[in-house]
Amino acid sequence: MKLLITIVQDADAPALVKALSEHGFQSTKLASTGGFLREGNTTLLIGVEDDQVETVKAIIREKGRTRTRLITPGVPLAEAPDPFLAQPVEVRVGGAVCFVVDVEEFFKC
Amino acid sequence: MKLLITIVQDADAPALVKALSEHGFQSTKLASTGGFLREGNTTLLIGVEDDQVETVKAIIREKGRTRTRLITPGVPLAEAPDPFLAQPVEVRVGGAVCFVVDVEEFFKC
Amino acid sequence: MKLLITIVQDADAPALVKALSEHGFQSTKLASTGGFLREGNTTLLIGVEDDQVETVKAIIREKGRTRTRLITPGVPLAEAPDPFLAQPVEVRVGGAVCFVVDVEEFFKC
Ligand code: NI
Ligand code: NI
Ligand code: NI
Repeated sequence: MKLLITIVQDADAPALVKALSEHGFQSTKLASTGGFLREGNTTLLIGVEDDQVETVKAIIREKGRTRTRLITPGVPLAEAPDPFLAQPVEVRVGGAVCFVVDVEEFFKC
Repeated sequence: MKLLITIVQDADAPALVKALSEHGFQSTKLASTGGFLREGNTTLLIGVEDDQVETVKAIIREKGRTRTRLITPGVPLAEAPDPFLAQPVEVRVGGAVCFVVDVEEFFKC
Repeated sequence: MKLLITIVQDADAPALVKALSEHGFQSTKLASTGGFLREGNTTLLIGVEDDQVETVKAIIREKGRTRTRLITPGVPLAEAPDPFLAQPVEVRVGGAVCFVVDVEEFFKC
């Protein structure tokens, strides 16, 4: 068994936990902050059988990876005479970090 | 040395930390939530010498395991004419999950 | 790669995170409490390449180690006629604990 210590953006954590759960993987959420990612991140502990690690990695990449999103700045028209200001802007969101650690023994009770 | 990353119900955490301490084992409490157990759990980091792992596992099982408890629903008599409603009900409480990870090096300073 | 699961006093955490960052090491802060150290500590997850572990250990020792500090008790003079009470007192502050765990695999996405 492996323990995947996974740090994702707060905004991505609920969707990742839900996707993991739908695929039968349980996770425990720890409150975390700063460091590897921008402020506001969540650390998940995910225990995974060896033959399922690639599946879980794919789910993490799907839900937590860095990607860009187009947002249109919410500038009131009166204050933005320059139409360029109303153009959508590409911002980076998400981003995940994952440490895979070997678990020598696991038990539930 | 091993690190026992242990997730228990919030309600069981104080008794577990106390029992560990009484047996000479220190633990660090992380706030956690959801996932492996019902809402409201606590993750403990417990560093343990190899020859003490079984002792600590036994303490975790003693204080954190899933067990049943009989509770009598607090229904006001006037609203529960059916005496069956006043019967004790068996509920599951507790439950722990433990990942044992090898520690290559440990230091205090 | 190694994961250094490091527990320091809350008061020392910002300086440690800053020193790590200045040396190019990222860390993730988990809220923690009790156990290995006096109340009010912080757990840091620090991912480190094998050849950098000694450097990071030195930074942890520099910023988090137990040391003494002289404090002068803030007793109002009127209430402390005995001049002995105004003498500086040596108190212990700080203290860190670090578990070094092997990371089998690491990814960012
Ligand atoms: Ni899927
Ligand atoms: Ni005992
Ligand atoms: Ni330096």
